[in-house]
Amino acid sequence: MDLRPFIRDIPDFPKPGVVFKDITPLLADGPALDAAVAALADRFRDRRPDLVVGAEARGFLLGPAVARELGAGFVLARRPGKLPHDTVTAEYELEYGRGTLELHTDAVSAGERVLVHDDLLATGGTARALCELAEAADGTVVACGFLVELTFLEGRKRLDGYDVEALIAYDS
Amino acid sequence: MDLRPFIRDIPDFPKPGVVFKDITPLLADGPALDAAVAALADRFRDRRPDLVVGAEARGFLLGPAVARELGAGFVLARRPGKLPHDTVTAEYELEYGRGTLELHTDAVSAGERVLVHDDLLATGGTARALCELAEAADGTVVACGFLVELTFLEGRKRLDGYDVEALIAYDS
Repeated sequence: MDLRPFIRDIPDFPKPGVVFKDITPLLADGPALDAAVAALADRFRDRRPDLVVGAEARGFLLGPAVARELGAGFVLARRPGKLPHDTVTAEYELEYGRGTLELHTDAVSAGERVLVHDDLLATGGTARALCELAEAADGTVVACGFLVELTFLEGRKRLDGYDVEALIAYDS
Repeated sequence: MDLRPFIRDIPDFPKPGVVFKDITPLLADGPALDAAVAALADRFRDRRPDLVVGAEARGFLLGPAVARELGAGFVLARRPGKLPHDTVTAEYELEYGRGTLELHTDAVSAGERVLVHDDLLATGGTARALCELAEAADGTVVACGFLVELTFLEGRKRLDGYDVEALIAYDS
């Protein structure tokens, strides 16, 4: 199934000159949602992940469904103060300034195989932070999987050394 | 499968005197995640929803997976300014003050059957706002489905007239 028709361009969002890739029409279409989850899971089935890790809020949209399709669990990375138990923290670079993500310290066990997921790979800062958090908990990152990749932002550079795959790539 | 052992109490979170029901161990366990999604979907299969609607961030965790299991699509409700296209807005009551959620105006079509979902039913403010947003778009709310219900907060009162179901209820 060609998923591209379900992703729409929103010019000048969130600021002038930026074209936002809006995946909400894909999520709202039953067959497209099903196909996206199945395709993401199929890409990583042979990596046998125990866990999928994703960051709020948009990493929560497909991460648990992909985890379920793979027979894996889902681990939440959240903004500071949102997770109720003991956490580890990673800072990451945003276009302007820095962000922080937290993971429960007991969310990943030593040696567990982790698939890092987000809906979209842009500059790679969030995904890099997720890799660091998973590894800080002694997990093994087996791959980083995205629905959409904006190749012109070169997020793969920040994920050097990791196996990175995306279902749909935009080069402009 | 008994899901209760996968939900843990966190005392004094987010503030002293409150016991937080932490569902992250359930999400992180593959079989428990699978069972929770299957059980939620089974409860509402005969309602034949076209769409599941959930609010960021925690409504995104199970909502799309339940939608997929039901052959439905998933529609995002987000905080103001996060959705890139034209939106409708609903305000709702929080314990202190008010919150606002937005839905894309084109996310729900007239007559579509909507399952409102959140991970947890507390005072019912968020779910009520989701019902109002779905109906503002001329959708029909066929049920409100939750993983966890805190019955002592009486959220059902705010959802009077709707069919409300939760997999797990805590009465204190």
